Amino acid sequence: MKKLEERILKDGILIEDRILKVDSFINYQIDVKLTNEMGREFARIFRECGATKVLTVETSGLPLAYAVARHLGDLPLLFAKKNKPNTNIDEDYCAEVRSFTKETINLIRVPKKYLNAGEKVLIIDDFLASGAASLGLLDLIEQAGASCVGVGVAVEKEFQGGRALLEAKGLRVVSLAHITKMKDGKIEFHYTE
Amino acid sequence: MKKLEERILKDGILIEDRILKVDSFINYQIDVKLTNEMGREFARIFRECGATKVLTVETSGLPLAYAVARHLGDLPLLFAKKNKPNTNIDEDYCAEVRSFTKETINLIRVPKKYLNAGEKVLIIDDFLASGAASLGLLDLIEQAGASCVGVGVAVEKEFQGGRALLEAKGLRVVSLAHITKMKDGKIEFHYTE
Repeated sequence: MKKLEERILKDGILIEDRILKVDSFINYQIDVKLTNEMGREFARIFRECGATKVLTVETSGLPLAYAVARHLGDLPLLFAKKNKPNTNIDEDYCAEVRSFTKETINLIRVPKKYLNAGEKVLIIDDFLASGAASLGLLDLIEQAGASCVGVGVAVEKEFQGGRALLEAKGLRVVSLAHITKMKDGKIEFHYTE
Repeated sequence: MKKLEERILKDGILIEDRILKVDSFINYQIDVKLTNEMGREFARIFRECGATKVLTVETSGLPLAYAVARHLGDLPLLFAKKNKPNTNIDEDYCAEVRSFTKETINLIRVPKKYLNAGEKVLIIDDFLASGAASLGLLDLIEQAGASCVGVGVAVEKEFQGGRALLEAKGLRVVSLAHITKMKDGKIEFHYTE
């Protein structure tokens, strides 16, 4: 998505060729117009996938996931939380997620009653790097006996391996800004259009 | 907002007359259509307040805050994070927030560069109970030299005192479901329409 790529080049901040900060329009302050356009674009791309629910993980993927759900005809939106499981662990599906930027391991969870066998779940997130978050969400989906019909992310850092892991599981992965390289302060995209 | 009140009566779960769980349509799984309608209603109510930015705190207020910002003409949306401040504390505004349900104290923060003197900020959140979250957000706004033009929440539990505290600071407080009493498993609303 050209508009997102241009915005990343304009406002993204690259730290040590490893971390890309997009705080000013995705991660902290949200450009609502751009988010809505990204939601519309994902709805166009995933229109035929038969999704019955959109799933994300807190926090910064939530506005985009909402926009996608809205453009797919107001699908239910579910988000996994990162808190430790409560005492009623039997009521939640839980999965482990390793954070790339913070170097910690989080548990993510959703209540079992909101993820059911047979559902077709579209995963939406702001970033795809190592793929850990999406794999954790996929784990929750599989525990429920539901299926994942695709993974859509705003910004992908392909060289961190997430896409390869997800595609190896047979998943369709779509990113709106597909970064192939971050080197010497420069960002290179795999242009799809 | 009649539709929200009816939904609370239908799907809300009251625990010990103190905690109202709305996990199935606001806090965990999000009813996107209802959220969009709430966003439109807040935009109608706050249309003339001159807001230049919408502010919320992670996590579950984010979809509603996004919907409000969208209906107010794609205003920038900023959310405060609950993490501990990073080492660059000079770059963030920080405030303390006491959680009513979890009985903990969190620090919330926003980067200084996203909240500027002179801005007119509309606070949006899913719940108003003790008012702690809104007061924390107000603290951030005041540190920045900006002003708060209103507080909009989906669900208010008036008897927990938040409205009184906020109104004492001269703030306009609007809730779409204004609960005056939760007793013996029954919920009573202050109907505004």
